[in-house]
This record gives sequence, C-alpha cells and structure tokens, in this order.
Amino acid sequence: MTDAAMTDTRTYECPNFVLQCGITLPAAKLVYKTYGTLAEDKSNVILYPTSYSAQHSDIEWLIGADRILDPSRYFIIIPNMMTNGLSTSPSNTPYPLNQGRFPAITIYDNVMLQRRFLTEVFGIERLAMVYGWSMGGQQAYHWGALFPDAVDRLLITCSSARTSEHNKIFLDSIRAALTADPAWRDGWFQEQPVKGIRAMGRIYAGWAISQTFYRQQLYKSLGYATLEDFLVRFWEWTYARRDANDLYAQLGTWFNSDISANELYRGDLAKALGAIKAKVLLMPGETDLYFRPEDNELEMPHLKNAELRPIPSIWGHRAGNPSQNPEDERFIAQGVRDLLSA
Amino acid sequence: MTDAAMTDTRTYECPNFVLQCGITLPAAKLVYKTYGTLAEDKSNVILYPTSYSAQHSDIEWLIGADRILDPSRYFIIIPNMMTNGLSTSPSNTPYPLNQGRFPAITIYDNVMLQRRFLTEVFGIERLAMVYGWSMGGQQAYHWGALFPDAVDRLLITCSSARTSEHNKIFLDSIRAALTADPAWRDGWFQEQPVKGIRAMGRIYAGWAISQTFYRQQLYKSLGYATLEDFLVRFWEWTYARRDANDLYAQLGTWFNSDISANELYRGDLAKALGAIKAKVLLMPGETDLYFRPEDNELEMPHLKNAELRPIPSIWGHRAGNPSQNPEDERFIAQGVRDLLSA
Repeated sequence: MTDAAMTDTRTYECPNFVLQCGITLPAAKLVYKTYGTLAEDKSNVILYPTSYSAQHSDIEWLIGADRILDPSRYFIIIPNMMTNGLSTSPSNTPYPLNQGRFPAITIYDNVMLQRRFLTEVFGIERLAMVYGWSMGGQQAYHWGALFPDAVDRLLITCSSARTSEHNKIFLDSIRAALTADPAWRDGWFQEQPVKGIRAMGRIYAGWAISQTFYRQQLYKSLGYATLEDFLVRFWEWTYARRDANDLYAQLGTWFNSDISANELYRGDLAKALGAIKAKVLLMPGETDLYFRPEDNELEMPHLKNAELRPIPSIWGHRAGNPSQNPEDERFIAQGVRDLLSA
Repeated sequence: MTDAAMTDTRTYECPNFVLQCGITLPAAKLVYKTYGTLAEDKSNVILYPTSYSAQHSDIEWLIGADRILDPSRYFIIIPNMMTNGLSTSPSNTPYPLNQGRFPAITIYDNVMLQRRFLTEVFGIERLAMVYGWSMGGQQAYHWGALFPDAVDRLLITCSSARTSEHNKIFLDSIRAALTADPAWRDGWFQEQPVKGIRAMGRIYAGWAISQTFYRQQLYKSLGYATLEDFLVRFWEWTYARRDANDLYAQLGTWFNSDISANELYRGDLAKALGAIKAKVLLMPGETDLYFRPEDNELEMPHLKNAELRPIPSIWGHRAGNPSQNPEDERFIAQGVRDLLSA
C-alpha cells in the first residue's frame, strides 16, 4: 500500500454503533475510497467491498476503463471491511475493546454500517451493483438479502450465502495454527505471533489455488523461482503484513457469514435467498477448493433471478480476483458487462 | 490399539543399517505382524505397508476372508513403517539419535529394510502383491521400482510415485502448525506439543475428506453429533495418540517420497516408472484432494502394465482406506480380485 493510494481515502464515523453480538462500538469507523463520479440521479453506484485480509489498495487494481469495473461510467466505492486494519479493527480500537477484547463482527454488521454510510455521506439509497469476491461476495449476498429494494444487481465471484462446513474446517485450521504460537497470548500479544502467521500463510497457499496450478508450476510465471519462494515471498508475506488480532477477527466474520443469521430470516436460508430481488450473477471458480461451485448450485433454486456461470480456471479461489491472470479477468469482465446491460 | 492386537507382533532387528541420508542406525527395528499361512513355495505373499501415522492395528481391519485381503489364501505381512512409533522412530530410539536428532528416513530406507527383513526372516524373495494406501502406496511404488523382479503386482490406492508440489504444501502447512507450538522446542520437547498436534488434526480434516462429505454431514452417520465433535473426537484424537517427533519425521518421509530419488534412477522419474515390471492397478479417489487422480494419469504413459481405476467416492483421500465405508470397500475388493487373478 503506497502513500499515494491512501491520499484520497476518507473515513466515515458512526457513533454508538450496536453490533449483532450486543456490544456497542462508541465510534465505528469505515474507511473508504471512491473512483469515478457520482451521477446526478445517483444511478451509477457500484459498491465493491473488500475480501479477506485485503484493504482497498489490494483490490482496486480491477478498476479501470479497460478492466472489470469502469470508473468513467460508474461511481465505484470500496468500503474497507471492519477488522481489515483500516476500518474499525482490533488493532486500531481503543481500550477497552482493543486486542483480545475486540467484539465479534459479522458481515451483517458491516453491511448495516455501509448502508448508513452511503445514506449519510452520499444520500445513496440504491445501488446499481454490488460486486464482490470471496468475503466481498458475502457482503454482496447480505446486501441483496437485507436490502432487497436497494440493490439492482449482484455480481459475486467465489463466495456463498452461508459459509459451508468444509469451508469452516479450513478457517478453523488457520485459527488453530495462528493461536498455537505462544506469542499469540490469547490476543494479548506484545509482538506479532510471527510463526503462527507464517503457518497460516502455508495453510492458505494450499487451499487458495488449485492443485493443477501447482502441478504446472504457474508461480514461476509470476516471478517466483521455486515453490518455497512462492510460499515465503507471496503467502507468508500476504498475512505477515497484517495484525494477528485483525486476521483472527476477520476469520470469525467469515466463519459466521450467513445471510439468514439475523432477525429478518432467523436461520431460514431459503427464505433469505428468496428475498433477494436483484439480478444475480454467481461466478464461482471451477477449481475453487473452499467456495465450491456445488455450494452455489444449491442456492440456485431459491434465487429468483440468478445465473450461475463458473469461471473455467485452474487458479482455484483466486480465479475470482485475477490480478495476475488476464484470461479470468476477461471472463469476469464479460460477466460484468452482461449483468450491467441486463 | 488393544493389547490383544499386539500379542503376535514380532520385531526384526537389523544392525548397522545405513540410511540414505548417511546416518547409521545401530539397530534398525521393524515391527511386523503376519496373517495367514506362508505357502511352501512362498508364492502367496502380500506385503501391506502402513500409511501415515498408522500402526498395523489401524489398518488390519481390511484383512479377512470376506474383506479386501484374504488371509485364508494369502500370507499377509504388515511391516510397520519406521517413524510410526513401533518400528524405529524418534520416540523409541536411544541417545544420540533420539528426539530432535533423529535422522531423515525415506521410503527408500523403509523398503530396503523390508527387503532384508523378508529375506532373512522368511526367505521370501518374491511378492505376489504389494498393497498400499497413501504412504503405504508410496512404499508399493518403491518396491516396484527398486526390485522390479521381486514384485508381481502392485495395488495402490490414493498415492503417487513422487509427492506432488500441491501435496507438499499440505504437508508443509502441517509442519508449520505443529512447530508453531512453543512446547515443540525444535523437537526437544518435555511434554507433547498438544496445541500444535490439535491444529494439525484440523488441517488434516479439511484435506483428507472431500467437501461433499462435509456438505452431506456424513460424519453424523459415523456417530459424531456435530462437525466440532468430529474434529475433536476423530481428527484431533487421531494424531494426539502419537509422539510429535514421530509425526514430524513421517511428514518428512512423505514429503520426500520419490521412486527416482536414489542412485538407481538419479531423479529420472519416467525411467523409474518404466522399470516397474509388476502389473499395476492404480486406484486414486476421485475426490482425493492431495493425491489427485491427475497425478496418476501423468504416470500412466510411463508404466508398462498398469490400469487406472479411480474410486467413485465422496470420501476423498479416505476412499482408499474405507474402514467405515462398505461401498468403497467393495470397489477396492473387486480391484484386488481382478489384479490377483490377472
């Protein structure tokens, strides 16, 4: 993240924001960045929430006239998800809600905060599209289910409406590795639990990209000399940039993601899916190991107006964030064009 | 492991056994158990090596007149792999090769020791079949490549001739989690690194069974009330039974498994595969996440006399050890019958 990328971020602050878990954030902060110009009738808004451990600067690459989201036509807003280190997070929240006492944050909480932010800051009541990958997709699903009349379209890559059990095992294994490091100290660490974070990177590496990618050693085309080089310089690096409490908190957000886990739907997933009025384009990665296309297939009968269009890719989960992968980018860009013209 | 199951194990001891890594084991121990009766002409021998972290008592369930290996016709020998806690392992080797100084053991080393054992104890020079699952399969591949004239058949479930890179990431993530526990102390622990071992169990849980198994909650049919119940009482239990140095050492054996990593083949995998004279039946699990059928497909052009027959199963890697899964057991049993009658 360069300083230059940070210059035009802004912070929305919401006093006394009550979380689903019952704890009040005295000053919930949402750091955001916008791209393009808001139309006078406010009809050109795309919300693009962040994915796991990502900050806006990690995902803004796909915004560009010739890329996936076009800022010359659309007003694109990236709201940083809480717990990502920029918006309200364990690492930046003052006593007494700091570190090991940071409360559980849900996707629901994030979307509620985003809704208030859009209304209060921009007077935006309706979104042309919510676009999201992975945890960004979870936020998109929630937008569709929680505010059915406020969202025209959802484009969701590699995600699900409710975190599946097999996905939870992956997340739980990361938490177990992260917290096995003695430096973790139940979240009250004085120094980052570096070994735990590095173990986490290695677990992630296996799950986030397909076996075929590794068999073909495609990491070499990305500038990594060996598998170990890729594991250390990409995967360990990715998470070692972040605070361990932030990483841990966001794993909890992911683990508990469920569009029906709220008073509106009370656990009735079919009802929550059925409430979505937006046009939905689901684009799972064919070789994604934790957000399986089969999990999306099971959602389809309940969605009123949805298309399932798997990305034919060996990049696994990363097919949905093709920052180094022009073929998958073209495939998703076509999906965006089709959905926005529908 | 009941005491009853142990009564008829025997130990073969080989003095001054030189390992591939250059270290000498003053007294290499191979603990074994046999089932059935050796024919006078010694033509009915099936060698059935152990899989990761398993001891003979964990895998002998499939030996029975109506099961996969029939002891009324065959003389079946289970040699416990070194580092499994029974044969020579970090946990049972005296100073100075104990704990953190235990030398690297390869599949090659194990097969060399097994060869000497069979000759010296039973005068067996030829095997009707080597049958192995996972790391047991790695030993079977090695038998075929290292002693082409001594093996008539190989039946290999869920394994590969050389550990793939994507498989290595899985193994490496386990090592990272195991060693993040402060109790590990670089192998010089005073108490088992319980948190690391439990983290390992959770990583394993996600990889060893398919996403579909978990989506269908098949663990409930095995007597586990919830996913967490399955994770704790099956997966954490499985590895918490073992010594952490043994677990760690055997991960290294797996990581480095390669039938061409020796002076015979000097890294030429195609040559090593091509040297196998045995009839080979490869039975990968269709949904296995770390031993992918695709990895076996790539071996097929180099094998002289092999059939690839994937197990149509949602049990992932465990399709190859169907102790609780009659359908996959029938499928493998048919493979054994076909191969033994060929």
